[in-house]
Amino acid sequence: MRQTQLFTKTRREAPKDEVAKNAQLLIRAGFINKEMAGVYSYLPLGLRVLNKIVGVIREEMNSLGGQEVSLTALQDKNLWEKTGRWSDDVLDIWFKTSLKNGTEVGLGTTHEEEITNLMKNFIHSYRDLPVYAYQFQTKFRNETRAKSGIMRCREFLMKDLYSFSKDEKTHAEFYEKAKQSYLKIYERLGLGEITYVTFSSGGTFSKYSHEFQTITDAGEDSIFVHEQKKIAINKEVMIDEVLNDLGIKREDLIEKKAVEVGNIFNLGTKFSDALDLNYSDEKGSPHKVIMGCYGIGPGRVMGTIAEILSDEKGLVWPEAVAPFAVHLIAIFDKAGKVKVEADNLYKKLSEKGIEVLFDDRDATAGEKFGDGDLIGIPARYVISEKTLATESVEKKDRLTGKVEMVKISSL
Amino acid sequence: MRQTQLFTKTRREAPKDEVAKNAQLLIRAGFINKEMAGVYSYLPLGLRVLNKIVGVIREEMNSLGGQEVSLTALQDKNLWEKTGRWSDDVLDIWFKTSLKNGTEVGLGTTHEEEITNLMKNFIHSYRDLPVYAYQFQTKFRNETRAKSGIMRCREFLMKDLYSFSKDEKTHAEFYEKAKQSYLKIYERLGLGEITYVTFSSGGTFSKYSHEFQTITDAGEDSIFVHEQKKIAINKEVMIDEVLNDLGIKREDLIEKKAVEVGNIFNLGTKFSDALDLNYSDEKGSPHKVIMGCYGIGPGRVMGTIAEILSDEKGLVWPEAVAPFAVHLIAIFDKAGKVKVEADNLYKKLSEKGIEVLFDDRDATAGEKFGDGDLIGIPARYVISEKTLATESVEKKDRLTGKVEMVKISSL
Repeated sequence: MRQTQLFTKTRREAPKDEVAKNAQLLIRAGFINKEMAGVYSYLPLGLRVLNKIVGVIREEMNSLGGQEVSLTALQDKNLWEKTGRWSDDVLDIWFKTSLKNGTEVGLGTTHEEEITNLMKNFIHSYRDLPVYAYQFQTKFRNETRAKSGIMRCREFLMKDLYSFSKDEKTHAEFYEKAKQSYLKIYERLGLGEITYVTFSSGGTFSKYSHEFQTITDAGEDSIFVHEQKKIAINKEVMIDEVLNDLGIKREDLIEKKAVEVGNIFNLGTKFSDALDLNYSDEKGSPHKVIMGCYGIGPGRVMGTIAEILSDEKGLVWPEAVAPFAVHLIAIFDKAGKVKVEADNLYKKLSEKGIEVLFDDRDATAGEKFGDGDLIGIPARYVISEKTLATESVEKKDRLTGKVEMVKISSL
Repeated sequence: MRQTQLFTKTRREAPKDEVAKNAQLLIRAGFINKEMAGVYSYLPLGLRVLNKIVGVIREEMNSLGGQEVSLTALQDKNLWEKTGRWSDDVLDIWFKTSLKNGTEVGLGTTHEEEITNLMKNFIHSYRDLPVYAYQFQTKFRNETRAKSGIMRCREFLMKDLYSFSKDEKTHAEFYEKAKQSYLKIYERLGLGEITYVTFSSGGTFSKYSHEFQTITDAGEDSIFVHEQKKIAINKEVMIDEVLNDLGIKREDLIEKKAVEVGNIFNLGTKFSDALDLNYSDEKGSPHKVIMGCYGIGPGRVMGTIAEILSDEKGLVWPEAVAPFAVHLIAIFDKAGKVKVEADNLYKKLSEKGIEVLFDDRDATAGEKFGDGDLIGIPARYVISEKTLATESVEKKDRLTGKVEMVKISSL
């Protein structure tokens, strides 16, 4: 894409009320816009990053056998009354509104109720199980505090997978596969090294649930990390019993701030009991379906990457999620030769399917380099009168800062 | 995809409260689920169709120079008060809710306010214009009546493009290009022949706006069609003055029922006045930006296709939007030979990138054919003991019903 065509521009300052580093950087670089606290629009560069994260997650969900659906934001009060979660005393993050006829409806904070009810149309027999269904869908959560940029929003995209299994054994096997799949996702997104499977409280049907916690001082959670075993314990469940269960010693743990970038949960029969989701086994006897839920917020992951993988100059995107692979920066000469050569190179790279942001603006080298560092595309190619003297571009790695001259013919 | 893996199943009956043909068929075939009146989930087959429609529209929007963004559902009351549209007396389809601190917010029915305000960060000079930005985003409209299935919803996906131009001339040029782009979209989606550019009331800044109306008895609009000129006039503006403007005679028009599958509108400076979106010209003099908006609802288009391009047996998808290109139906023999050959064929077609739904279920031929007709995939390949005797499949065209034997080696 030609930068002269991109409608966003970098800004020197983020809005004064924006206190989160991730949002400050993303707003300054033109990736997002703040509509109100905890509510952000995605602009062209930001949407490209978000879609790449979505793409990685979708691939892994499909590998797990997940089938993609798209549920609704508007929620039927009756379903949530059956599970006891309609009351604001139970779920304190509801946004509620009404139809014209006065019927109260909620905006989905999560979708267990809707999907369990939906599956009653399709799950009747053991032959219909297992089912794994997932979606990328907007959640609404009426957070009192929303000061962490796109790491905690009132409106945000969520990938939520729900599993429906016939018994504990098949559920447990899938749950473990899903856990490995999540680890692969964070690995692919460049957060693998600093993301820990974290034991957290489990509820009625399992002793533990599992969070995926990424280490950052901007995180709202405290976890105790066992670096050697690559696991962690959420502060909430940091008791001797848990240490014994996991066979680890308190002295081997280090307390760290972290952000929860995903979680998986054994729901047992909580929702199939409340909403009456049954199946018949081989002998025709009825059973409740065993469920699990598996969540990742692509926007929160994006915010976490922006928060952690950035430096004093700006954003630093891993290749897998970068809005473009190459930032081609042309430093124009008066004779117009650079313009011709840069245009050619841009076309050739684009034809090869390489995603290039081409800085063809009439701006100073200093402005272009500054904006390039702020936007954070992994590879910067500078083309100028000087580099053309050796038929080269100057290639700079955004992460390492390493600079080398590369022949144009070899690109 | 193997049909044994697909969690949806066809249903004999749609819910009794569902009166729209499009939704009845789509629910019976397992494409969508009704959550409440005017609120539908998209299931795997339905989401595939919706995404194909989105894909076609996105290609055309990108061809127009559109840049994709994603705005928010939660809307700031202050912006809408500035344009005079916050009051329920002015906009009677609002869903409104509140933040925890009591601040009232709306759910976006449309996004002129948000995007105009957003552009104040990026549009300052004539050099920043034109800008064309679009999104695929969920709209919420509190419809009193929602009885047309996915042709009129309370929550639905919308593609809305907004144009920002420096003067009437450049605006008018883009408006005409967008009109042609819309016609191309309906053509590609299989609705070209029965979709008419329809003159409608224009508002303050233009005498007319333009609707794209597709002829169907299920439509809620009445239009007067001039078949020879391939244009129409909305009943609301069917007066002599309009006939004169268009140089057509009343007797050449035929009244028809139609559904509005898109509209384009010259907004003039309505929003840039109210929200103060200005640019400086070459001499530094300030001007208001000229805006246009351009909408298509992919779900409504899907409902319209389901409503019109279906027959007594079920859905009939055009190739461009079909959930799969081929429905491979295996009629198993006892010896197991069909199973082996069908599996092979499924794998080979899939490897070639052909999208195949493979009916590998243990069901009767009658059930499989009935479900195949209901689901409506364009090409049906039947593989059975009989067809294998000539190393062939029986190919049937869902639209024409034409049947031919095709050698497996030639597929």
